[in-house]
Amino acid sequence: MIKIAIVGATGYTGAELVRLLSDHPHADIQVLTSETFAGQRLSDLYPALGEAGNWVLKKKMDVDLTPKNVDVVFLAVPHGESMHMTPGLVKAGVKVIDLSGDFRFPDTSEYEKWYQHKHTAKDLAAKAIYGLPELFRDDIKDANLVANPGCYVTSVVLSLYPLIKAGAVDTKSLVVDAKSGISGAGRKVQAQTQFNRVSENVIPYKLAGQHQHTPEMELALSQATGRDVVINFTPQIVPAKRGILSLAYGRLEKKMTTADLQELYTTAYASEPFVQVRTEQESLPELSQAVGTNLCLVSVYVDERTQTVTALGSLDNLIKGASGQAIQNMNLICGLDETLGLPIAGLIP
Amino acid sequence: MIKIAIVGATGYTGAELVRLLSDHPHADIQVLTSETFAGQRLSDLYPALGEAGNWVLKKKMDVDLTPKNVDVVFLAVPHGESMHMTPGLVKAGVKVIDLSGDFRFPDTSEYEKWYQHKHTAKDLAAKAIYGLPELFRDDIKDANLVANPGCYVTSVVLSLYPLIKAGAVDTKSLVVDAKSGISGAGRKVQAQTQFNRVSENVIPYKLAGQHQHTPEMELALSQATGRDVVINFTPQIVPAKRGILSLAYGRLEKKMTTADLQELYTTAYASEPFVQVRTEQESLPELSQAVGTNLCLVSVYVDERTQTVTALGSLDNLIKGASGQAIQNMNLICGLDETLGLPIAGLIP
Amino acid sequence: MIKIAIVGATGYTGAELVRLLSDHPHADIQVLTSETFAGQRLSDLYPALGEAGNWVLKKKMDVDLTPKNVDVVFLAVPHGESMHMTPGLVKAGVKVIDLSGDFRFPDTSEYEKWYQHKHTAKDLAAKAIYGLPELFRDDIKDANLVANPGCYVTSVVLSLYPLIKAGAVDTKSLVVDAKSGISGAGRKVQAQTQFNRVSENVIPYKLAGQHQHTPEMELALSQATGRDVVINFTPQIVPAKRGILSLAYGRLEKKMTTADLQELYTTAYASEPFVQVRTEQESLPELSQAVGTNLCLVSVYVDERTQTVTALGSLDNLIKGASGQAIQNMNLICGLDETLGLPIAGLIP
Amino acid sequence: MIKIAIVGATGYTGAELVRLLSDHPHADIQVLTSETFAGQRLSDLYPALGEAGNWVLKKKMDVDLTPKNVDVVFLAVPHGESMHMTPGLVKAGVKVIDLSGDFRFPDTSEYEKWYQHKHTAKDLAAKAIYGLPELFRDDIKDANLVANPGCYVTSVVLSLYPLIKAGAVDTKSLVVDAKSGISGAGRKVQAQTQFNRVSENVIPYKLAGQHQHTPEMELALSQATGRDVVINFTPQIVPAKRGILSLAYGRLEKKMTTADLQELYTTAYASEPFVQVRTEQESLPELSQAVGTNLCLVSVYVDERTQTVTALGSLDNLIKGASGQAIQNMNLICGLDETLGLPIAGLIP
Repeated sequence: MIKIAIVGATGYTGAELVRLLSDHPHADIQVLTSETFAGQRLSDLYPALGEAGNWVLKKKMDVDLTPKNVDVVFLAVPHGESMHMTPGLVKAGVKVIDLSGDFRFPDTSEYEKWYQHKHTAKDLAAKAIYGLPELFRDDIKDANLVANPGCYVTSVVLSLYPLIKAGAVDTKSLVVDAKSGISGAGRKVQAQTQFNRVSENVIPYKLAGQHQHTPEMELALSQATGRDVVINFTPQIVPAKRGILSLAYGRLEKKMTTADLQELYTTAYASEPFVQVRTEQESLPELSQAVGTNLCLVSVYVDERTQTVTALGSLDNLIKGASGQAIQNMNLICGLDETLGLPIAGLIP
Repeated sequence: MIKIAIVGATGYTGAELVRLLSDHPHADIQVLTSETFAGQRLSDLYPALGEAGNWVLKKKMDVDLTPKNVDVVFLAVPHGESMHMTPGLVKAGVKVIDLSGDFRFPDTSEYEKWYQHKHTAKDLAAKAIYGLPELFRDDIKDANLVANPGCYVTSVVLSLYPLIKAGAVDTKSLVVDAKSGISGAGRKVQAQTQFNRVSENVIPYKLAGQHQHTPEMELALSQATGRDVVINFTPQIVPAKRGILSLAYGRLEKKMTTADLQELYTTAYASEPFVQVRTEQESLPELSQAVGTNLCLVSVYVDERTQTVTALGSLDNLIKGASGQAIQNMNLICGLDETLGLPIAGLIP
Repeated sequence: MIKIAIVGATGYTGAELVRLLSDHPHADIQVLTSETFAGQRLSDLYPALGEAGNWVLKKKMDVDLTPKNVDVVFLAVPHGESMHMTPGLVKAGVKVIDLSGDFRFPDTSEYEKWYQHKHTAKDLAAKAIYGLPELFRDDIKDANLVANPGCYVTSVVLSLYPLIKAGAVDTKSLVVDAKSGISGAGRKVQAQTQFNRVSENVIPYKLAGQHQHTPEMELALSQATGRDVVINFTPQIVPAKRGILSLAYGRLEKKMTTADLQELYTTAYASEPFVQVRTEQESLPELSQAVGTNLCLVSVYVDERTQTVTALGSLDNLIKGASGQAIQNMNLICGLDETLGLPIAGLIP
Repeated sequence: MIKIAIVGATGYTGAELVRLLSDHPHADIQVLTSETFAGQRLSDLYPALGEAGNWVLKKKMDVDLTPKNVDVVFLAVPHGESMHMTPGLVKAGVKVIDLSGDFRFPDTSEYEKWYQHKHTAKDLAAKAIYGLPELFRDDIKDANLVANPGCYVTSVVLSLYPLIKAGAVDTKSLVVDAKSGISGAGRKVQAQTQFNRVSENVIPYKLAGQHQHTPEMELALSQATGRDVVINFTPQIVPAKRGILSLAYGRLEKKMTTADLQELYTTAYASEPFVQVRTEQESLPELSQAVGTNLCLVSVYVDERTQTVTALGSLDNLIKGASGQAIQNMNLICGLDETLGLPIAGLIP
C-alpha cells in the first residue's frame, strides 16, 4: 500500500483526492492537513463525502511528512505556497505531486511574469517533470517532483497535440475559446460565484491573453512537438459546477479534410486509456460529458470554405483537470497500472 | 460471480444498473435487452458510460433468461410490462428484482385502482417481497421475487418509520410535500421536461392525493409498524437532474422534543449502512446531498408552538430510490455483504 | 407627478423600485440613498438597469426628505433600521412605505420576540397600516405609514384567505411548505448563496416554525377573517433567482369539493386586478409563472380521500412580494389607478 | 394607431411581439394567427402573458390582411413559409416585417445553398431591405418589406462593424465563437432541448462553418463596410433560456491599443439608443446582461502579445435578436420615435 498525505485537503481538489483515493485499491491515506480547519473532520465540511471524509484534519506542523510515514505527498495548496514546502519534502525523499502552478515552468522568469510572484525554488523548478502522462509518460515514471497541469491546459493541449505534431496548422495564430464550470474558481465565497451572478449567464474573464494558463499550454505544446506555439486564450464561466469545454481554432497549413485529421487523432490516441476521440457530429464533446470521469474527450473538424480547423476538448476540471490526473501520475510514479482508481463512467443523466 | 440480466437497459434506471454493476466485484453482466435499440451498443446511446456501456443490446426473444445463463434478472421496464414476464422467470428458477410498480401490492385491487391497469399475476403479487432492506431485510434474503420500492416512497418511509413505530405522531393526518429532480420522469422526450419549462421553476403535479406512490408509502409504513397510516402526498419537479427531498408533517401525539425524536432516529438506524441521521440544523438533508450515493439522509424536528413534527428524507432517486436499492436487494438475496458495489461518497461540488 | 425618495436603493428591492418607477407615468424619482455606495451611480452597480439607473446615490444626511422635496419615501432598509427613521418622516408629513418588517406588528412585543430586536417606535407601530391591498384596501388609501408585507406572507395569505374566511378549513392545524428563489436572501455575498451550493439543490432552512414570517401570516389572516389562525411554516431555497411557490395544507371542516372551493376563490377575487385564480390542473401556479409581474396566482384542490385541502400561491418575491406591492400601495395612497406602472405579462420563456 | 397583424403568433418570437406590442403606445393588435391553435386564446398556451395574451387565434384564411384592416404584418413563421405569403401582402399594400430568413439574401442562390430550400420570390428578395437599423436606418424608413436579421447575426455584426469599417482587422481570418440560450431553438419539443441534456452543459452544434447565419453576417458586414468579410462561425447552446454572447477573434492589421479601439466604438455608436459600448473589464458584456431589453452590449480588447483583437457582443435573442428589433424596424417604417415600446432595463437579478 502507498502511504499518502494530502496537504490542503479542504479545497475542491483536496476533497476530490480524498474521494478518489478512498476507493483506490493501493492507496492508504495517512495524513490530511488544513491550517484553517485543523481539529475538525473533513466530513464536517463536506457531509456528502460520507465515510470517505471521516479523517481528522491536522496542521502541517503537527504531522510527519517523511518517508517513515508517507510515500507520496499531494500538494493541493494555492500558487506561491508549494514552492516553500517542496524543497524539504523532496530532500527528505518523499515523492511530491504538486497541483499548484509553482513548478510548471522550468524557466521561472516566465512563472514570475504571469503569476506576479517571486519564485524561491528555481533549481527544483528546472528539474520538475510536467505531469501530462499522454505526452510525458516516461519522464513521469522516474520523477521525484511532478508539476500537475492546469485544468484548461490539459483540455487544450490534448485537443491540439496531434494537429500540431503533424504540422497541419499555423501555430502562430491559434485562438482558444474555453468554458468552465464554476468549481474552477475554488470554494472561496465571492461575488463572482453567487448563484444570481452565474445562473443563466456566461461570464468572460481575463480576456485578451491575460490568463496564466496561456504560457503553460504554449510551453507544453512546444516541448512536445518542437514547434513554436502562440495562443490567444479566452476563458469563460458557465452555469455548471464542473466541466471544461475548449474550442481551439487554427488555420490549416495544408489541404486536409476532417477525415484526414480524425485519422491522425485516432492513431495518436489509439492506446491512451483516458483520451476518447469523437468522430461523429452526434457525439461531439460537450462540457458535461466527461464529468465524473478521468476522461478527456477530443474531436477535430475542418471548415473547408474558410480553411479553419476546430479542435474540441472536454474534461472534468477537478478530475482529469486536477486530482484524477494527479492520481494517474501517482500510479505511474509507483509502477502501478495507470488506470487504477480512476472512474471512466459518468452519471446518466 | 453472479450472472446478471437487465431487461430494459436503456432507460435511466437500466443505465444506472449497468454503471453500478460494472464496478461490482461479484457481478457479471450477461445480457442487456432493449426492444427499441437492439443491435446498438448501450454506449452509443450514452457516451458518458464509456467502457461500462460497451454491450450490444438484444431483444428479449433472442436471449436465454434461464438459470443456465443468468442468476438474477433486473426488470427495468414500465409498469404493466413486468407482470407479464415475471411468472415465467420465477417458474424457470431465476431470482427477479422488479423495479416497476407491478408487484408492490399484495392486494392487486389496490394496484388496479391506482395504476388503472388490470393485474394478470395476482398469485405472484401476493407472494412478492417488498424490497426495502431497512424494514424487511430478513424476508428479502429468501425472496425469489423482490418488488423494488418507488423513489418517493423510499425517502418518505425511511424518514417517517421511527416516528410512527414509536406512536409519536397522529398517523391519520400526515402531509408530505416532496420535490424531485426531473430524471424521475424518465428519459422520454416531452414538453414537461424541456429546459425552458423546468429551469428556474418548481412544478407541482398530481396534486391532492393523485400520485400512485401514495398507497405504496401508506402500505409499507402500515405493514412495518402495525398502525393505520393515511398520507396526503404532493410531488413537485425542481430544476435538478437527480435527487429527492421529502418533508413530512404530522401532529405530535405526545409531548416530545426535537432531542427526544432525534434519539429515537439515531437508535433506530444505528446499524444501517445506508441511512444517515442528521441532527444539526447546519447539516439538514438537502436535495442534492445524497446524489451519486446509495444513502438516504433523514432528520426530524419539532415545532413546539404548533405541536407539529417535520421529518425530512433525501436520496438519489436513481440510486437509493431505484437501481442502488435494487443492487442492495441483490446483495441480500445472494448472501453477499449488503454494501458491495454501492457508493457512499458523492461529488463535491 | 409624485416626488419619490428611495432610502436604501442598492439592495434588490431598492433596485426593483427604481426599475419599476422609472416606467411609472406619475412617478418622479428625486432621491436615491445609499450609505455604502454614495457618490456612485446606481447603474455602476447594476449595468442591466441601463438609463433607468442613471442616478447618483447620496447619503441620507445629504438629502432633504421633507414635503418640500418628496411626497412618498420608500424605505428599503434592513429590519431594525426603519424604526429609527420613520417617526421623523411621518412627523415631517411625508408618506412612508416601509418594506422592512418593523411596522408589521401593532403589538411590538410580538415583533421583539420573532425579530430578536428591541422596538423603539411602539406608538407608530400601533397606527401603521398593513399594506396588503386585497385585504385592507380602504385603510391603505388613508395611510401615512404603510407596512409592506413580507414576500412569503403575501403568497400564503392570498392563497388561504377565501378558504379561511368561509370557515372551510381547520385553522389550528395549517401546514405551509414554501419554496423561494435565492434573491429572497438579498444581495449579500455569503456561502449559502453560492452557485455550487444552490444549483441542482433544494435547501430547507428555519425549519419547525422558526421563520419570522410565520406570525405575520397568522396575524394578517386572523385580522382579515376574525378567526384564530395557527400555521407551521417551512421555507426552502430552490435554484431560481426569483419566484415563490407556497403550498398550504389544511383539514376540511365541512364536506366541500374542489369545484366548491374554486367557486369560492373565483368569487372572492373576481375584481382583483393582481390575483389570478387557476382552476385547471394544466395551469396550476408554478414558481416561475408570475416572475416579472405583479400577479399572485392562486389555486385550491381537495383530496377527498384524506379530507385535505391544498391551497397554492405563486408570485415574484421582488414584485408582488415586495417592490411591486409597495408601488400598488403608493398608487392607492396617492389616489391613482391601482394598476399603474405594474407589469402583468412575464417573459416567455 | 398602427394596426398590426402577427402571423404565427404562438412561437417564441410571436409571443414576444404580442408581449411588447401590448405595451406600445401606438400599436393596436388586430389579428393573431396560428394554424395549429386557431380557436384558442394565446393566454391558454402562455398563462404568463396574462391579459396581454387575451386574443383568440385565427387561421390565416379567416383573416383580412389588407390595408383595410392592417398597416403592418409581422411574419413569425418558419423559413420557407414567408416567401409564399409575402408577395401577396406587399402587392396588397401592407408593410411586411419578416422574421424568417427568407428575404435576407438579395442573391437567392446564396439562400438556396445555405437553407437547402428553393426560393420562389426572387424579385422581391432583391428589393427587400435588411432590417439592422444601426447600419441601414435610412433604407428601412422607406421599406415595404424588411428582412429582420438573425439573432446571432445582430450580435456579431454590431460587435465587429466599427473594427472592420476602420480597416483595423484582417477580414479574411475572422473566428466567431457564440453561445446562445435554448430559446433560440424554438419551442418545439425535442431531445436536444430537454433539461437533462442542457442543464450544467455546453453543447456545440453545426461546427466548422455549417450554420446558416454565417453568410448572413458576412454579407451584412461586407455591405456596410465595402470589405470582403470571411467568418468561421461556431454556435453553442448554454444552460439559459435567453441571451446570446458572441466573441469574435481577429488579427490586427495595424498596431492599435485597446484604448484606440474603444474610442473607435464609442464614437461609432455615440448616438445609438440600443448599443452600449462597455470599456471596463468589470462591466464586460455577459450573456444575461441584456436579457429583457432591446440593447446590444459591445466591447473590444487587444491582446498585444499575439496581436489578436477580441470583439464581444451580447443581446437578448428574442428581443434585439428578433421581436424587439422587428418593432424597432416598425417604428422606423411608421415614422415613430425609434425607441417606443422597447425596454432598456432588465431584471435584477
